[in-house]
Parts: sequence; C-alpha cells; structure tokens
Amino acid sequence: MIAAIYGYGNLGKGVEHALKKRSDCQLFGVFTRRNPNDVKAITGVKTYAAKDVFKYEKNIDVMFVCGGSATDLPQITPVLAEKFNVIDSFDTHAKIPEHFDEVDKAAKRGNKIALISCGWDPGLFSLGRLYSEAVTGGGKSYTFWGKGVSQGHSDAIRRIDGVIDAKEYTVPIETAVNSVIKGENPKLTERETHKRECFVVAEKGADREKIEKEIKTMPYYFDGYETTVNFVSEEELKTGHGGYPHGGKVLCVGRTGENSENKQIMELSLKLDSNPEFTGSVLTAYACGILKAYEKGVRGAVTVFDIPPAYLSTLSDEELRKKYL
Amino acid sequence: MIAAIYGYGNLGKGVEHALKKRSDCQLFGVFTRRNPNDVKAITGVKTYAAKDVFKYEKNIDVMFVCGGSATDLPQITPVLAEKFNVIDSFDTHAKIPEHFDEVDKAAKRGNKIALISCGWDPGLFSLGRLYSEAVTGGGKSYTFWGKGVSQGHSDAIRRIDGVIDAKEYTVPIETAVNSVIKGENPKLTERETHKRECFVVAEKGADREKIEKEIKTMPYYFDGYETTVNFVSEEELKTGHGGYPHGGKVLCVGRTGENSENKQIMELSLKLDSNPEFTGSVLTAYACGILKAYEKGVRGAVTVFDIPPAYLSTLSDEELRKKYL
Repeated sequence: MIAAIYGYGNLGKGVEHALKKRSDCQLFGVFTRRNPNDVKAITGVKTYAAKDVFKYEKNIDVMFVCGGSATDLPQITPVLAEKFNVIDSFDTHAKIPEHFDEVDKAAKRGNKIALISCGWDPGLFSLGRLYSEAVTGGGKSYTFWGKGVSQGHSDAIRRIDGVIDAKEYTVPIETAVNSVIKGENPKLTERETHKRECFVVAEKGADREKIEKEIKTMPYYFDGYETTVNFVSEEELKTGHGGYPHGGKVLCVGRTGENSENKQIMELSLKLDSNPEFTGSVLTAYACGILKAYEKGVRGAVTVFDIPPAYLSTLSDEELRKKYL
Repeated sequence: MIAAIYGYGNLGKGVEHALKKRSDCQLFGVFTRRNPNDVKAITGVKTYAAKDVFKYEKNIDVMFVCGGSATDLPQITPVLAEKFNVIDSFDTHAKIPEHFDEVDKAAKRGNKIALISCGWDPGLFSLGRLYSEAVTGGGKSYTFWGKGVSQGHSDAIRRIDGVIDAKEYTVPIETAVNSVIKGENPKLTERETHKRECFVVAEKGADREKIEKEIKTMPYYFDGYETTVNFVSEEELKTGHGGYPHGGKVLCVGRTGENSENKQIMELSLKLDSNPEFTGSVLTAYACGILKAYEKGVRGAVTVFDIPPAYLSTLSDEELRKKYL
C-alpha cells in the first residue's frame, strides 16, 4: 500500500510512525497547508503543498486525512474522498451520521472507498460496544474514557479566540464505574459518567471569563459536563501536562440463563502512553483493511463495523486461523 | 432465523436460552442422540431423534452443532454442513486447520455456509488477538484463561474409562501475567502461563493411577501442563464444584513512537458466571451473522475473522452508526 498523510499534526505523525512498522506499507509523502518547505517530516519523507494534492491522484492508494473534527474533517474528507481512498478519525459522535452521508456521496461519485471515524473511540471502542451487546444477548455497554487527554477536546479549546494552547483531561466518575461492574445496570448519560478538566494558556490580556464560558457551553464537547477550567502558563502546560496519555474501557454486563441468573461481564480496555500514536496505528491497520475491501468491490463510505477483522492483518486467512483462532 | 440445536448438553441449553433473547430468532427444535421421548427441552420445544435430522433440511436456517471437540464435532459438523448452514464451537486449537478443511469441503458441496470454532476462545479471544496485534503495529498478544472450568477439558476427562464425572479448572500463573503487563514481552508457551486442576469422580474399583496418567498425558489437553488430579466423591463434585464459571483475558502490549518509547496496552477480558451459556450466546449472535453472509453469497467454511461486526447485530447499518460508533 502506498499511503499519504494530509495534515501533519500529532495524528499525522502518529500515522507516519505506524506506517514504518507495517511491512506492507509505504509512505508517499505528507501534504500540509503550511509552506511545505517549512515542514520537515520525522522520517524525512517529502512534504507537499496541500493545494497540489490532486496532482498525485494516481500515486496514492490511501490518503490519511488528519485534522480536527470540529471544522477540518467535515470540509476536507468529502473533497478528498472523490479522488482518493480515504480514512479519517472524525470523532464528533453526534454528527457521525451527517458526516457519513457527505463522505458516502463523494466517495461514490469518485468510485472510491472511505472509512470514517476510525481510531480507538470512535473505532475500537465502537467495536467493543457492538460486539459486547451482540454476544451478551441484550447486555448494555458503558464507555468510560480516561483519565486522559482528549485531542479533540483540547483542539476545540485551542480554536477559541484568545487561547494559545490547551489540554483537556477526560476523567471517569468512579461511582458510575462501580455501579456498572456490580451489575446494577444504571441509567447514565455521558455527562454522568465523566468530568472534564481543562488547562488553558490564554493570551496576555484575554478575557478569561469569556473563554471559560465559551468552553463550558461548547455544544457536544463540554456543554452539560462537569467542567473545570484552569488557566496556566505555557511553561506549566509543557512541564505538567506533556504527552498525550489516554485510555478507558468499554464495560458490558449481560445476563443469561433461564431466569437471567448468570452475570457475564465483558470488558475492553486501553491504557495508552500516546493517544495520537495509537490512533495513528489503528488507522494504519484499517487503511490496509479498506484496500482489501476496495479490491473486493466495496465503494462509498464504510465504518469499522463493515470491515471483516481478517482484512486488518498482513497474514493470509490460513495463517490467521493457525496463529490466532 | 429458524434455528435448531443438534446435541443437547450444557452448550445446547446455553444456545436455547440465548435464542429466546433474540427477537430475530426462533427455535425449531432439539435433535438428540438419546431417545427424544426421554429428553425434555427447557423451553418445551420439540425434541427429535438425531438420525432423522435430514428430514428437516428445508425447515431450518442454521443448525447449532453442540458436541465435544475431542470426538463429536470432527465427525458430525462435516456431515451436517453438507445439508445445513452450521455453526460449531470446535476448540482443539491445534486441529483447527484440519477441521476447517473438512467442513469447508462439505459446505461447498452442499452450497452452504459453516462457521467453525465460535465461542469465546476460540471466538472472541481470537478476535482480541487479531485486532490487538494488528492495531498496535506488531504488539504481541498473550492469552490467559481462568480461573475457570474448561468444558472441553472436563469433557475429555469424562470420556476416560472408569471416570463417572469430572471438572477441570484452568488457572493462570500470576508471575506470567505480571511480566506481560510490565511490558517485558516474555517468551511463554501456553504451558508456562497456565496450570490445570482436575477434580475427578472415579468408578468404584477403577484404577486411579491409570486414570491420572491418562489425563496427564492426553495430547493437546493436558500433556506438558502442570496438572494436578484430585479424586472426589460425586457429592463433593456437586457441592464444591457446581456451575461453569470461567473467564480470562487477552493482553497485548505494543510500542509506538520514533524510538518505540510509548507503551500501548490493549486488554479484552471476560468474567463469566456460566461458560456454556455465554458460549451459547456468542454462537447465537454469529448464527445470525453467518445468515447475513450467506445471503450475500458467502459459501464454505468461515471463522469469526471473516464476519463483519455489523452482521452480528439486529440493528441496521444506520442504527449501528448512530448507536455504537
């Protein structure tokens, strides 16, 4: 597979690292909206201007669209999906159906395949929810994130006027986790299971009250969550909140038996030192996966739900059965 | 889906319970090698003689083949696969390629689909191994079972001459688990990660030494494992070792980053009050899954690796994206 990366931030770099590890992948180059001469890729691969991307239509098997979900991906993924097989990590859960439809139309126009909303959530955790509810026969799954830095939420804060930099931690509420494990099957909204802690570097003289209000009322991202906003210096953010650790779990408690007397607990959990690098690694496996689907004639938008697990591996079906089954 | 159960032991009963919970499933009946008049199904569904099974070829969408892996399934699944879409839980890992080939040939002769080796291991844990190694970019997965009762191993002991009943517990070796979590990437065989504890009821006057030796040297099942054999009375087995609890985890530690400096841990774990009921529940979801694959033209033997996750759910693709992604 010859891949290219469109957008060279933390996720783009994570993809770059992951591609190096896959024997069946090769990186064509990085497309950036900055001046390509100012952007040096970690692996030394060539950088191109984003505006020139369509010149390379014939050179690239899959394009990794690496951008923020708030404004980048809804605009960029459909445009690229008409000319390239694409994969993105769109993570605004509530807007996924809309994004899917836009990308689907574009990919079908171009006779391409497009995987949206890949990564670990949406992505692996989505699979955890689907699989666990299907196999426990009506069990209800609960998703807990963190404690960890959410790239999407940090990114959303950084787009606010007067904000220089920011990190957001998503933190599960412990009493909610315990209630699920006990099999109490509680009714919980996302907002009752997590709180959000923000560390924000503001411009000198910025209206901090206004920034705080803008964060706390941001639809989908913070609105309705227990959110704390702490203003810190650039130095404090760097030393105290470096890296992108994250993690979480999908927990599902089902019941089986004549009188539902037996509890069956399924849990998928992640503990990640680097969220963007792991996300890049998941995207890379799925990029190989959608190419196999493409070869079998699949066109239009797809999700992780549509890709048979076997497609993600470098191994043949025979080897998979022998090694993993 | 109209389903039937062939073989009415613990697993068959687990399937029966699970089918009740699925709105898209209906149970035609139970086929038994015993006298059907002597077998009363829990849900009151009709019981049939196993030898009459082919009379009902046209009435059944999927046949659950519920038998032991040691001798039943290698014989029965290929025979049934020629006339029915079938699903089994064949779990002798080392013999899976051979079983796959036999079933594949039979199913293709009959233009049917056959899913072999479904359940939680092989099955969900196989998926855990494949997914985790693919998405961590070269991480190595480790599987730990237990502590719990292995039906396959208990069944294998019960087939030994002079044995009335038996339960086998698979127990993970704690030092091995900890080494994996620390990221030490240890080289471990299955035998270095688990020990096996057997509780056996022998016939009066049976040669206990011979039974113990036969257990400890049984290929694939016990040979090479640290195995302890305890002879107990029927009463002790019933009161002290009732039920079929099990569980375990697939643990995978990958590394990402320029110098592989970041550790990424993925874990799939199960804690099951009833192993056969959970296995029955997994099989039920996959029976619905293979019917969707069959409708799309898939024929021959398949495994959980080949089935897109979406096929397991009762929901439409749109609903899945909205609810789970």
